[in-house]
Amino acid sequence: MKTPVFHTTRRVEFADTDMAGIVHFANFFRFMEAAEVEFLRSRGVSVAMSWEGDRIGFPRVAASCDYLAPATFGDVMDVAVSIERLGTKSVTYGFEFTKDGQVIARGQVSSVCCRILDDHKMESMTIPASFRARIEAAN
Amino acid sequence: MKTPVFHTTRRVEFADTDMAGIVHFANFFRFMEAAEVEFLRSRGVSVAMSWEGDRIGFPRVAASCDYLAPATFGDVMDVAVSIERLGTKSVTYGFEFTKDGQVIARGQVSSVCCRILDDHKMESMTIPASFRARIEAAN
Amino acid sequence: MKTPVFHTTRRVEFADTDMAGIVHFANFFRFMEAAEVEFLRSRGVSVAMSWEGDRIGFPRVAASCDYLAPATFGDVMDVAVSIERLGTKSVTYGFEFTKDGQVIARGQVSSVCCRILDDHKMESMTIPASFRARIEAAN
Amino acid sequence: MKTPVFHTTRRVEFADTDMAGIVHFANFFRFMEAAEVEFLRSRGVSVAMSWEGDRIGFPRVAASCDYLAPATFGDVMDVAVSIERLGTKSVTYGFEFTKDGQVIARGQVSSVCCRILDDHKMESMTIPASFRARIEAAN
Repeated sequence: MKTPVFHTTRRVEFADTDMAGIVHFANFFRFMEAAEVEFLRSRGVSVAMSWEGDRIGFPRVAASCDYLAPATFGDVMDVAVSIERLGTKSVTYGFEFTKDGQVIARGQVSSVCCRILDDHKMESMTIPASFRARIEAAN
Repeated sequence: MKTPVFHTTRRVEFADTDMAGIVHFANFFRFMEAAEVEFLRSRGVSVAMSWEGDRIGFPRVAASCDYLAPATFGDVMDVAVSIERLGTKSVTYGFEFTKDGQVIARGQVSSVCCRILDDHKMESMTIPASFRARIEAAN
Repeated sequence: MKTPVFHTTRRVEFADTDMAGIVHFANFFRFMEAAEVEFLRSRGVSVAMSWEGDRIGFPRVAASCDYLAPATFGDVMDVAVSIERLGTKSVTYGFEFTKDGQVIARGQVSSVCCRILDDHKMESMTIPASFRARIEAAN
Repeated sequence: MKTPVFHTTRRVEFADTDMAGIVHFANFFRFMEAAEVEFLRSRGVSVAMSWEGDRIGFPRVAASCDYLAPATFGDVMDVAVSIERLGTKSVTYGFEFTKDGQVIARGQVSSVCCRILDDHKMESMTIPASFRARIEAAN
Protein backbone atom coordinates (compact mmCIF):
# COMPACT_ATOMS: atom_id res chain seq x y z
CA MET A 1 0.00 0.00 0.00
CA LYS A 2 1.28 3.48 -0.86
CA THR A 3 1.47 6.21 1.76
CA PRO A 4 -2.07 7.03 2.92
CA VAL A 5 -3.46 10.40 1.84
CA PHE A 6 -6.44 10.28 4.19
CA HIS A 7 -7.59 8.70 7.42
CA THR A 8 -11.05 8.21 8.84
CA THR A 9 -12.72 5.90 11.34
CA ARG A 10 -15.61 3.48 11.06
CA ARG A 11 -17.62 2.01 13.91
CA VAL A 12 -19.09 -1.45 13.32
CA GLU A 13 -22.89 -1.39 13.56
CA PHE A 14 -25.11 -4.27 14.65
CA ALA A 15 -26.48 -4.64 11.11
CA ASP A 16 -22.93 -5.01 9.75
CA THR A 17 -22.50 -8.34 11.56
CA ASP A 18 -23.60 -11.81 10.52
CA MET A 19 -24.42 -15.00 12.40
CA ALA A 20 -20.70 -15.73 12.76
CA GLY A 21 -20.67 -12.74 15.10
CA ILE A 22 -18.29 -10.72 12.94
CA VAL A 23 -18.61 -8.11 10.19
CA HIS A 24 -19.93 -9.75 7.04
CA PHE A 25 -17.14 -9.70 4.46
CA ALA A 26 -19.20 -7.89 1.80
CA ASN A 27 -19.65 -4.90 4.11
CA PHE A 28 -15.98 -3.98 3.91
CA PHE A 29 -16.67 -2.89 0.33
CA ARG A 30 -19.32 -0.46 1.59
CA PHE A 31 -16.82 0.76 4.17
CA MET A 32 -14.17 1.29 1.47
CA GLU A 33 -16.58 3.27 -0.69
CA ALA A 34 -17.64 5.43 2.25
CA ALA A 35 -13.98 6.18 3.04
CA GLU A 36 -13.33 7.06 -0.62
CA VAL A 37 -16.32 9.40 -0.62
CA GLU A 38 -15.13 11.03 2.59
CA PHE A 39 -11.64 11.47 1.15
CA LEU A 40 -13.05 13.08 -1.99
CA ARG A 41 -15.33 15.32 0.05
CA SER A 42 -12.28 16.50 2.00
CA ARG A 43 -10.83 17.54 -1.38
CA GLY A 44 -14.01 19.25 -2.51
CA VAL A 45 -15.04 16.65 -5.08
CA SER A 46 -17.56 13.79 -5.24
CA VAL A 47 -18.06 10.37 -6.84
CA ALA A 48 -21.34 11.70 -8.25
CA MET A 49 -21.02 15.19 -9.64
CA SER A 50 -21.75 17.54 -12.52
CA TRP A 51 -18.92 18.75 -14.70
CA GLU A 52 -19.40 21.32 -17.45
CA GLY A 53 -22.98 20.25 -17.95
CA ASP A 54 -22.30 16.52 -17.86
CA ARG A 55 -23.14 14.23 -15.00
CA ILE A 56 -20.09 12.16 -14.22
CA GLY A 57 -19.66 9.11 -12.03
CA PHE A 58 -17.04 6.55 -11.11
CA PRO A 59 -18.44 3.05 -11.64
CA ARG A 60 -16.27 0.33 -10.15
CA VAL A 61 -14.38 -2.03 -12.48
CA ALA A 62 -12.56 -4.07 -9.85
CA ALA A 63 -12.61 -4.56 -6.09
CA SER A 64 -10.71 -6.87 -3.77
CA CYS A 65 -10.15 -7.40 -0.08
CA ASP A 66 -7.95 -9.56 2.15
CA TYR A 67 -9.33 -10.32 5.58
CA LEU A 68 -6.68 -10.70 8.26
CA ALA A 69 -8.67 -10.53 11.49
CA PRO A 70 -12.36 -10.26 12.33
CA ALA A 71 -14.07 -7.03 13.36
CA THR A 72 -16.96 -7.21 15.78
CA PHE A 73 -19.92 -5.08 16.89
CA GLY A 74 -18.86 -1.75 18.37
CA ASP A 75 -15.28 -1.90 17.11
CA VAL A 76 -13.91 1.40 15.88
CA MET A 77 -11.58 0.80 12.95
CA ASP A 78 -9.10 3.26 11.54
CA VAL A 79 -9.41 3.38 7.75
CA ALA A 80 -6.37 4.58 5.79
CA VAL A 81 -6.93 5.59 2.15
CA SER A 82 -4.17 5.64 -0.46
CA ILE A 83 -4.07 6.36 -4.19
CA GLU A 84 -2.51 3.26 -5.66
CA ARG A 85 -2.75 4.36 -9.27
CA LEU A 86 -4.11 7.43 -11.00
CA GLY A 87 -4.52 6.89 -14.73
CA THR A 88 -5.96 9.07 -17.46
CA LYS A 89 -9.45 7.73 -17.05
CA SER A 90 -9.23 5.52 -13.99
CA VAL A 91 -8.18 5.56 -10.36
CA THR A 92 -7.34 2.78 -7.92
CA TYR A 93 -7.66 3.44 -4.21
CA GLY A 94 -6.09 1.30 -1.49
CA PHE A 95 -7.59 0.84 1.97
CA GLU A 96 -6.24 -0.51 5.21
CA PHE A 97 -8.48 -1.17 8.22
CA THR A 98 -6.76 -1.38 11.58
CA LYS A 99 -7.97 -1.74 15.16
CA ASP A 100 -5.64 -0.98 18.05
CA GLY A 101 -2.75 -1.21 15.60
CA GLN A 102 -3.77 -4.65 14.30
CA VAL A 103 -4.59 -4.91 10.59
CA ILE A 104 -8.14 -6.16 10.10
CA ALA A 105 -8.38 -5.93 6.31
CA ARG A 106 -6.66 -4.52 3.23
CA GLY A 107 -8.50 -3.75 0.01
CA GLN A 108 -8.46 -2.00 -3.34
CA VAL A 109 -11.17 -0.51 -5.51
CA SER A 110 -10.68 0.63 -9.12
CA SER A 111 -13.07 3.00 -10.83
CA VAL A 112 -13.34 4.53 -14.28
CA CYS A 113 -14.47 8.09 -14.80
CA CYS A 114 -17.66 8.03 -16.87
CA ARG A 115 -20.13 10.43 -18.40
CA ILE A 116 -23.62 9.32 -17.30
CA LEU A 117 -25.98 9.16 -20.28
CA ASP A 118 -29.70 8.46 -20.30
CA ASP A 119 -31.02 5.05 -19.31
CA HIS A 120 -28.09 4.40 -16.96
CA LYS A 121 -25.70 4.13 -19.90
CA MET A 122 -22.14 5.26 -19.23
CA GLU A 123 -19.25 6.33 -21.41
CA SER A 124 -15.67 6.48 -20.13
CA MET A 125 -13.96 9.87 -20.25
CA THR A 126 -10.71 11.53 -19.21
CA ILE A 127 -10.74 12.49 -15.55
CA PRO A 128 -11.39 16.27 -15.54
CA ALA A 129 -8.17 18.23 -14.93
CA SER A 130 -9.40 20.05 -11.87
CA PHE A 131 -10.69 16.83 -10.31
CA ARG A 132 -7.29 15.26 -10.92
CA ALA A 133 -5.52 18.29 -9.49
CA ARG A 134 -7.47 18.02 -6.26
CA ILE A 135 -6.77 14.31 -5.93
CA GLU A 136 -3.10 14.69 -6.69
CA ALA A 137 -2.76 17.55 -4.24
CA ALA A 138 -3.33 14.90 -1.65
CA ASN A 139 -0.29 12.90 -2.62
CA MET B 1 -11.95 -19.77 -14.41
CA LYS B 2 -11.99 -23.57 -14.12
CA THR B 3 -14.89 -25.60 -15.44
CA PRO B 4 -18.03 -24.73 -13.48
CA VAL B 5 -19.35 -27.38 -11.11
CA PHE B 6 -22.65 -25.66 -10.48
CA HIS B 7 -25.02 -23.16 -12.04
CA THR B 8 -27.77 -21.10 -10.53
CA THR B 9 -29.60 -17.86 -11.35
CA ARG B 10 -30.02 -14.60 -9.49
CA ARG B 11 -32.63 -11.94 -10.15
CA VAL B 12 -31.62 -8.35 -9.37
CA GLU B 13 -33.90 -6.84 -6.72
CA PHE B 14 -34.77 -3.16 -6.33
CA ALA B 15 -32.78 -2.96 -3.09
CA ASP B 16 -29.69 -4.31 -4.90
CA THR B 17 -29.45 -1.14 -7.00
CA ASP B 18 -27.90 2.22 -6.16
CA MET B 19 -28.46 5.76 -7.40
CA ALA B 20 -26.39 5.00 -10.51
CA GLY B 21 -29.29 2.75 -11.51
CA ILE B 22 -27.21 -0.43 -11.43
CA VAL B 23 -26.41 -3.17 -8.93
CA HIS B 24 -24.16 -1.75 -6.21
CA PHE B 25 -20.76 -3.42 -6.56
CA ALA B 26 -20.66 -4.71 -2.98
CA ASN B 27 -23.78 -6.78 -3.59
CA PHE B 28 -22.00 -9.11 -5.98
CA PHE B 29 -20.18 -10.49 -2.94
CA ARG B 30 -23.52 -11.36 -1.35
CA PHE B 31 -24.53 -12.97 -4.64
CA MET B 32 -21.31 -15.03 -4.73
CA GLU B 33 -21.83 -16.24 -1.18
CA ALA B 34 -25.43 -17.21 -1.90
CA ALA B 35 -24.31 -19.19 -4.97
CA GLU B 36 -21.61 -20.93 -2.90
CA VAL B 37 -24.19 -21.83 -0.26
CA GLU B 38 -26.53 -23.16 -2.92
CA PHE B 39 -23.74 -25.23 -4.46
CA LEU B 40 -22.84 -26.69 -1.05
CA ARG B 41 -26.48 -27.41 -0.30
CA SER B 42 -26.72 -29.30 -3.59
CA ARG B 43 -23.84 -31.47 -2.24
CA GLY B 44 -25.46 -31.94 1.13
CA VAL B 45 -23.10 -29.70 3.09
CA SER B 46 -23.22 -26.16 4.51
CA VAL B 47 -20.98 -23.18 5.27
CA ALA B 48 -22.28 -23.35 8.84
CA MET B 49 -22.44 -26.86 10.17
CA SER B 50 -21.68 -29.22 13.02
CA TRP B 51 -19.01 -31.84 12.59
CA GLU B 52 -18.27 -34.48 15.22
CA GLY B 53 -19.43 -32.18 17.98
CA ASP B 54 -17.65 -29.08 16.71
CA ARG B 55 -19.31 -26.15 15.03
CA ILE B 56 -17.38 -25.38 11.87
CA GLY B 57 -17.51 -22.39 9.58
CA PHE B 58 -15.74 -20.96 6.57
CA PRO B 59 -14.73 -17.37 7.28
CA ARG B 60 -13.53 -15.51 4.20
CA VAL B 61 -9.86 -14.59 3.90
CA ALA B 62 -9.97 -12.99 0.46
CA ALA B 63 -12.56 -11.81 -2.05
CA SER B 64 -12.30 -10.07 -5.40
CA CYS B 65 -14.50 -9.13 -8.32
CA ASP B 66 -14.06 -7.63 -11.78
CA TYR B 67 -17.04 -5.75 -13.15
CA LEU B 68 -17.40 -5.96 -16.93
CA ALA B 69 -20.94 -4.71 -17.55
CA PRO B 70 -23.68 -3.32 -15.33
CA ALA B 71 -26.66 -5.34 -14.13
CA THR B 72 -29.97 -3.57 -13.62
CA PHE B 73 -33.23 -4.09 -11.76
CA GLY B 74 -35.07 -7.23 -12.87
CA ASP B 75 -32.13 -8.74 -14.71
CA VAL B 76 -31.79 -12.49 -14.29
CA MET B 77 -28.13 -13.45 -14.21
CA ASP B 78 -26.71 -16.90 -14.64
CA VAL B 79 -24.15 -17.61 -11.93
CA ALA B 80 -21.52 -20.26 -12.66
CA VAL B 81 -19.55 -21.63 -9.69
CA SER B 82 -16.13 -23.29 -10.00
CA ILE B 83 -13.63 -24.67 -7.51
CA GLU B 84 -10.45 -22.78 -8.28
CA ARG B 85 -8.36 -24.35 -5.54
CA LEU B 86 -9.07 -26.91 -2.85
CA GLY B 87 -6.34 -26.94 -0.20
CA THR B 88 -5.99 -28.84 3.04
CA LYS B 89 -7.67 -26.17 5.09
CA SER B 90 -8.93 -23.69 2.52
CA VAL B 91 -11.02 -23.47 -0.61
CA THR B 92 -11.25 -20.84 -3.35
CA TYR B 93 -14.41 -20.61 -5.41
CA GLY B 94 -14.70 -18.82 -8.74
CA PHE B 95 -17.89 -17.15 -9.97
CA GLU B 96 -18.99 -15.87 -13.34
CA PHE B 97 -22.15 -13.80 -13.76
CA THR B 98 -23.61 -13.66 -17.26
CA LYS B 99 -26.75 -12.19 -18.77
CA ASP B 100 -27.88 -13.25 -22.21
CA GLY B 101 -24.40 -14.66 -22.80
CA GLN B 102 -22.64 -11.41 -21.86
CA VAL B 103 -20.27 -11.54 -18.90
CA ILE B 104 -21.36 -9.10 -16.17
CA ALA B 105 -18.80 -9.92 -13.50
CA ARG B 106 -16.16 -12.46 -12.48
CA GLY B 107 -15.10 -13.02 -8.89
CA GLN B 108 -13.33 -15.25 -6.41
CA VAL B 109 -13.82 -15.92 -2.72
CA SER B 110 -11.35 -17.82 -0.52
CA SER B 111 -12.35 -19.32 2.80
CA VAL B 112 -10.58 -21.24 5.54
CA CYS B 113 -12.24 -24.09 7.37
CA CYS B 114 -12.45 -23.14 11.05
CA ARG B 115 -13.63 -24.60 14.31
CA ILE B 116 -15.91 -22.01 15.95
CA LEU B 117 -14.96 -21.48 19.59
CA ASP B 118 -16.69 -19.37 22.22
CA ASP B 119 -16.81 -15.60 21.89
CA HIS B 120 -16.65 -15.73 18.09
CA LYS B 121 -13.07 -17.00 18.21
CA MET B 122 -12.06 -19.30 15.36
CA GLU B 123 -9.30 -21.84 14.87
CA SER B 124 -8.32 -23.15 11.43
CA MET B 125 -8.67 -26.89 10.87
CA THR B 126 -8.29 -29.48 8.14
CA ILE B 127 -11.40 -29.64 5.97
CA PRO B 128 -13.27 -32.78 7.15
CA ALA B 129 -12.72 -35.71 4.77
CA SER B 130 -16.37 -36.28 4.00
CA PHE B 131 -16.94 -32.56 3.33
CA ARG B 132 -13.99 -32.62 0.94
CA ALA B 133 -15.27 -35.77 -0.72
CA ARG B 134 -18.62 -34.15 -1.46
CA ILE B 135 -17.01 -31.05 -2.88
CA GLU B 136 -14.57 -32.99 -4.99
CA ALA B 137 -17.31 -35.22 -6.30
CA ALA B 138 -18.49 -32.14 -8.09
CA ASN B 139 -15.30 -31.74 -10.05
CA MET C 1 -54.64 -9.34 6.66
CA LYS C 2 -56.95 -9.63 3.65
CA THR C 3 -57.01 -12.76 1.54
CA PRO C 4 -53.63 -13.19 -0.14
CA VAL C 5 -53.50 -12.58 -3.88
CA PHE C 6 -50.02 -14.03 -4.33
CA HIS C 7 -47.60 -16.43 -2.72
CA THR C 8 -43.87 -16.81 -3.10
CA THR C 9 -41.00 -18.21 -1.05
CA ARG C 10 -37.82 -16.67 0.31
CA ARG C 11 -34.74 -18.54 1.52
CA VAL C 12 -32.71 -16.86 4.25
CA GLU C 13 -29.17 -16.15 3.09
CA PHE C 14 -26.08 -15.97 5.29
CA ALA C 15 -25.78 -12.22 4.69
CA ASP C 16 -29.38 -11.74 5.92
CA THR C 17 -28.38 -12.78 9.45
CA ASP C 18 -26.82 -10.74 12.23
CA MET C 19 -24.73 -11.60 15.28
CA ALA C 20 -27.86 -12.70 17.14
CA GLY C 21 -27.92 -15.59 14.67
CA ILE C 22 -31.25 -14.59 13.16
CA VAL C 23 -32.45 -12.52 10.20
CA HIS C 24 -31.77 -8.84 10.89
CA PHE C 25 -35.14 -7.12 11.30
CA ALA C 26 -34.49 -4.52 8.58
CA ASN C 27 -34.11 -7.25 5.97
CA PHE C 28 -37.79 -8.19 6.18
CA PHE C 29 -38.51 -4.89 4.42
CA ARG C 30 -36.28 -5.96 1.53
CA PHE C 31 -38.11 -9.30 1.50
CA MET C 32 -41.50 -7.52 1.40
CA GLU C 33 -40.41 -5.34 -1.49
CA ALA C 34 -39.10 -8.32 -3.42
CA ALA C 35 -42.41 -10.15 -2.90
CA GLU C 36 -44.33 -7.06 -4.08
CA VAL C 37 -42.15 -6.85 -7.18
CA GLU C 38 -42.70 -10.52 -7.89
CA PHE C 39 -46.45 -10.15 -7.46
CA LEU C 40 -46.49 -7.18 -9.86
CA ARG C 41 -44.33 -9.06 -12.35
CA SER C 42 -46.84 -11.91 -12.26
CA ARG C 43 -49.45 -9.31 -13.29
CA GLY C 44 -47.28 -7.85 -16.04
CA VAL C 45 -46.48 -4.58 -14.29
CA SER C 46 -43.51 -3.17 -12.39
CA VAL C 47 -42.64 -0.78 -9.55
CA ALA C 48 -40.39 1.06 -12.01
CA MET C 49 -41.97 1.53 -15.41
CA SER C 50 -42.74 3.89 -18.27
CA TRP C 51 -46.29 4.96 -18.87
CA GLU C 52 -47.32 7.11 -21.84
CA GLY C 53 -43.93 8.72 -21.96
CA ASP C 54 -43.60 9.29 -18.23
CA ARG C 55 -41.40 7.31 -15.92
CA ILE C 56 -43.47 6.28 -12.93
CA GLY C 57 -42.45 4.81 -9.61
CA PHE C 58 -43.93 3.87 -6.26
CA PRO C 59 -41.94 5.51 -3.45
CA ARG C 60 -42.83 4.19 -0.01
CA VAL C 61 -44.69 6.45 2.43
CA ALA C 62 -45.06 3.96 5.28
CA ALA C 63 -43.76 0.54 6.27
CA SER C 64 -44.23 -1.59 9.36
CA CYS C 65 -43.51 -5.09 10.57
CA ASP C 66 -44.32 -7.23 13.61
CA TYR C 67 -41.83 -9.96 14.40
CA LEU C 68 -43.37 -13.06 15.97
CA ALA C 69 -40.62 -15.65 15.68
CA PRO C 70 -37.03 -15.57 14.45
CA ALA C 71 -35.94 -16.86 11.04
CA THR C 72 -32.51 -18.40 10.69
CA PHE C 73 -29.98 -19.17 7.96
CA GLY C 74 -31.33 -21.58 5.36
CA ASP C 75 -34.96 -21.26 6.40
CA VAL C 76 -37.42 -21.18 3.51
CA MET C 77 -40.30 -18.87 4.33
CA ASP C 78 -43.61 -18.70 2.56
CA VAL C 79 -44.50 -15.10 1.78
CA ALA C 80 -48.19 -14.27 1.28
CA VAL C 81 -49.03 -10.93 -0.37
CA SER C 82 -52.36 -9.14 0.03
CA ILE C 83 -53.76 -5.84 -1.15
CA GLU C 84 -54.88 -4.12 2.03
CA ARG C 85 -56.00 -0.90 0.39
CA LEU C 86 -56.03 0.36 -3.19
CA GLY C 87 -56.63 4.11 -3.34
CA THR C 88 -56.68 6.54 -6.22
CA LYS C 89 -52.99 7.33 -5.95
CA SER C 90 -51.74 4.88 -3.34
CA VAL C 91 -51.63 1.20 -2.54
CA THR C 92 -50.97 -0.69 0.69
CA TYR C 93 -49.74 -4.26 0.51
CA GLY C 94 -49.82 -6.72 3.39
CA PHE C 95 -47.30 -9.52 3.87
CA GLU C 96 -47.22 -12.61 6.04
CA PHE C 97 -44.10 -14.71 6.43
CA THR C 98 -44.60 -18.27 7.64
CA LYS C 99 -42.33 -21.26 8.14
CA ASP C 100 -43.80 -24.71 8.55
CA GLY C 101 -47.12 -23.07 9.28
CA GLN C 102 -45.74 -20.83 12.03
CA VAL C 103 -46.03 -17.08 11.48
CA ILE C 104 -42.59 -15.45 11.52
CA ALA C 105 -43.56 -11.87 10.68
CA ARG C 106 -46.42 -9.71 9.39
CA GLY C 107 -45.90 -6.39 7.66
CA GLN C 108 -47.37 -3.65 5.52
CA VAL C 109 -45.91 -1.28 2.96
CA SER C 110 -47.74 1.74 1.52
CA SER C 111 -46.64 3.42 -1.69
CA VAL C 112 -47.80 6.38 -3.70
CA CYS C 113 -47.80 6.35 -7.49
CA CYS C 114 -45.48 9.11 -8.69
CA ARG C 115 -44.25 10.62 -11.92
CA ILE C 116 -40.43 10.70 -11.77
CA LEU C 117 -39.11 14.11 -12.77
CA ASP C 118 -35.53 15.23 -13.22
CA ASP C 119 -33.15 15.38 -10.26
CA HIS C 120 -34.99 12.59 -8.42
CA LYS C 121 -38.01 14.84 -7.90
CA MET C 122 -41.36 13.07 -7.78
CA GLU C 123 -44.96 14.17 -8.23
CA SER C 124 -47.91 12.06 -7.08
CA MET C 125 -50.35 10.96 -9.80
CA THR C 126 -53.44 8.81 -10.23
CA ILE C 127 -52.53 5.15 -10.61
CA PRO C 128 -52.89 4.45 -14.36
CA ALA C 129 -56.14 2.65 -15.14
CA SER C 130 -54.55 -0.34 -16.79
CA PHE C 131 -52.09 -0.76 -13.90
CA ARG C 132 -55.01 -0.68 -11.48
CA ALA C 133 -56.95 -3.15 -13.58
CA ARG C 134 -54.13 -5.65 -13.47
CA ILE C 135 -53.76 -5.29 -9.70
CA GLU C 136 -57.47 -5.59 -9.07
CA ALA C 137 -57.76 -8.60 -11.29
CA ALA C 138 -55.77 -10.36 -8.63
CA ASN C 139 -58.31 -9.70 -5.94
CA MET D 1 -43.15 11.65 19.58
CA LYS D 2 -42.06 12.25 23.18
CA THR D 3 -39.28 14.69 24.03
CA PRO D 4 -36.03 13.40 22.54
CA VAL D 5 -33.46 12.09 25.01
CA PHE D 6 -30.63 11.92 22.48
CA HIS D 7 -29.55 13.42 19.18
CA THR D 8 -27.05 12.20 16.62
CA THR D 9 -26.42 12.71 12.92
CA ARG D 10 -26.27 10.32 9.99
CA ARG D 11 -24.72 11.00 6.60
CA VAL D 12 -26.29 9.19 3.63
CA GLU D 13 -23.77 6.91 1.93
CA PHE D 14 -23.76 5.94 -1.74
CA ALA D 15 -24.67 2.35 -0.86
CA ASP D 16 -27.73 3.58 1.06
CA THR D 17 -29.36 4.79 -2.15
CA ASP D 18 -31.36 2.87 -4.74
CA MET D 19 -32.10 3.36 -8.42
CA ALA D 20 -34.76 5.96 -7.54
CA GLY D 21 -31.83 8.12 -6.44
CA ILE D 22 -32.95 8.26 -2.81
CA VAL D 23 -32.25 6.32 0.39
CA HIS D 24 -33.86 2.88 0.13
CA PHE D 25 -36.69 2.75 2.67
CA ALA D 26 -35.38 -0.35 4.45
CA ASN D 27 -32.17 1.46 5.36
CA PHE D 28 -33.97 3.79 7.75
CA PHE D 29 -34.37 0.79 10.04
CA ARG D 30 -30.61 0.32 10.09
CA PHE D 31 -30.27 4.03 10.82
CA MET D 32 -32.75 3.77 13.72
CA GLU D 33 -30.90 0.84 15.22
CA ALA D 34 -27.56 2.64 14.95
CA ALA D 35 -29.05 5.69 16.69
CA GLU D 36 -30.47 3.46 19.45
CA VAL D 37 -27.08 1.82 19.91
CA GLU D 38 -25.39 5.20 20.08
CA PHE D 39 -27.91 6.43 22.64
CA LEU D 40 -27.35 3.33 24.80
CA ARG D 41 -23.60 3.70 24.49
CA SER D 42 -23.90 7.28 25.73
CA ARG D 43 -25.61 5.78 28.81
CA GLY D 44 -23.00 3.09 29.28
CA VAL D 45 -25.14 0.16 28.15
CA SER D 46 -25.45 -1.94 25.00
CA VAL D 47 -28.02 -3.88 22.96
CA ALA D 48 -25.72 -6.90 23.26
CA MET D 49 -24.28 -7.31 26.72
CA SER D 50 -23.57 -9.67 29.59
CA TRP D 51 -25.51 -9.34 32.80
CA GLU D 52 -24.73 -11.40 35.91
CA GLY D 53 -23.40 -14.23 33.80
CA ASP D 54 -26.21 -14.17 31.23
CA ARG D 55 -25.91 -12.84 27.72
CA ILE D 56 -28.83 -10.52 27.11
CA GLY D 57 -30.12 -8.98 23.92
CA PHE D 58 -33.02 -6.91 22.66
CA PRO D 59 -34.60 -8.64 19.66
CA ARG D 60 -37.10 -6.46 17.83
CA VAL D 61 -40.81 -7.28 18.03
CA ALA D 62 -42.12 -4.36 15.97
CA ALA D 63 -40.78 -1.64 13.72
CA SER D 64 -42.47 1.05 11.66
CA CYS D 65 -41.56 4.13 9.68
CA ASP D 66 -43.38 6.96 7.89
CA TYR D 67 -41.52 8.56 5.01
CA LEU D 68 -42.29 12.26 4.54
CA ALA D 69 -39.52 13.44 2.23
CA PRO D 70 -36.68 11.70 0.40
CA ALA D 71 -33.06 11.76 1.58
CA THR D 72 -30.30 11.69 -1.00
CA PHE D 73 -26.59 10.87 -1.22
CA GLY D 74 -24.46 13.08 1.00
CA ASP D 75 -27.35 14.43 3.07
CA VAL D 76 -26.61 14.80 6.75
CA MET D 77 -29.72 14.04 8.77
CA ASP D 78 -30.29 14.87 12.40
CA VAL D 79 -31.68 11.84 14.23
CA ALA D 80 -33.66 12.48 17.43
CA VAL D 81 -34.24 9.50 19.73
CA SER D 82 -37.07 9.31 22.27
CA ILE D 83 -38.29 6.66 24.70
CA GLU D 84 -41.91 6.16 23.76
CA ARG D 85 -42.63 3.42 26.29
CA LEU D 86 -40.51 1.63 28.86
CA GLY D 87 -42.24 -1.52 30.12
CA THR D 88 -41.11 -4.23 32.48
CA LYS D 89 -39.60 -6.36 29.75
CA SER D 90 -39.83 -4.17 26.69
CA VAL D 91 -38.90 -0.76 25.38
CA THR D 92 -40.16 1.30 22.43
CA TYR D 93 -37.93 3.96 20.95
CA GLY D 94 -39.11 6.76 18.68
CA PHE D 95 -36.97 8.35 15.98
CA GLU D 96 -37.29 11.50 13.92
CA PHE D 97 -35.01 12.22 10.96
CA THR D 98 -34.76 15.84 9.88
CA LYS D 99 -32.68 17.71 7.33
CA ASP D 100 -32.42 21.48 7.49
CA GLY D 101 -35.44 21.48 9.76
CA GLN D 102 -37.58 19.42 7.36
CA VAL D 103 -38.84 16.07 8.65
CA ILE D 104 -37.62 13.24 6.43
CA ALA D 105 -38.97 10.26 8.37
CA ARG D 106 -40.45 9.21 11.70
CA GLY D 107 -40.20 5.70 13.09
CA GLN D 108 -40.55 3.43 16.09
CA VAL D 109 -38.82 0.23 17.12
CA SER D 110 -39.96 -2.02 19.98
CA SER D 111 -37.66 -4.57 21.57
CA VAL D 112 -38.00 -7.15 24.30
CA CYS D 113 -35.22 -7.83 26.75
CA CYS D 114 -34.15 -11.46 26.35
CA ARG D 115 -31.72 -13.91 27.86
CA ILE D 116 -29.76 -15.48 24.96
CA LEU D 117 -29.67 -19.26 25.30
CA ASP D 118 -27.79 -21.78 23.18
CA ASP D 119 -28.74 -22.29 19.53
CA HIS D 120 -29.99 -18.72 19.14
CA LYS D 121 -32.93 -19.44 21.44
CA MET D 122 -34.15 -16.48 23.48
CA GLU D 123 -36.23 -16.12 26.63
CA SER D 124 -37.83 -12.83 27.66
CA MET D 125 -36.77 -11.39 31.00
CA THR D 126 -37.30 -8.31 33.16
CA ILE D 127 -35.05 -5.45 32.06
CA PRO D 128 -32.20 -5.40 34.63
CA ALA D 129 -32.70 -2.62 37.18
CA SER D 130 -29.42 -0.88 36.52
CA PHE D 131 -30.02 -0.94 32.75
CA ARG D 132 -33.44 0.61 33.34
CA ALA D 133 -31.97 3.20 35.67
CA ARG D 134 -29.52 4.34 33.04
CA ILE D 135 -32.20 4.58 30.38
CA GLU D 136 -34.60 6.44 32.64
CA ALA D 137 -31.92 8.83 33.75
CA ALA D 138 -32.09 10.13 30.22
CA ASN D 139 -35.71 11.08 30.48
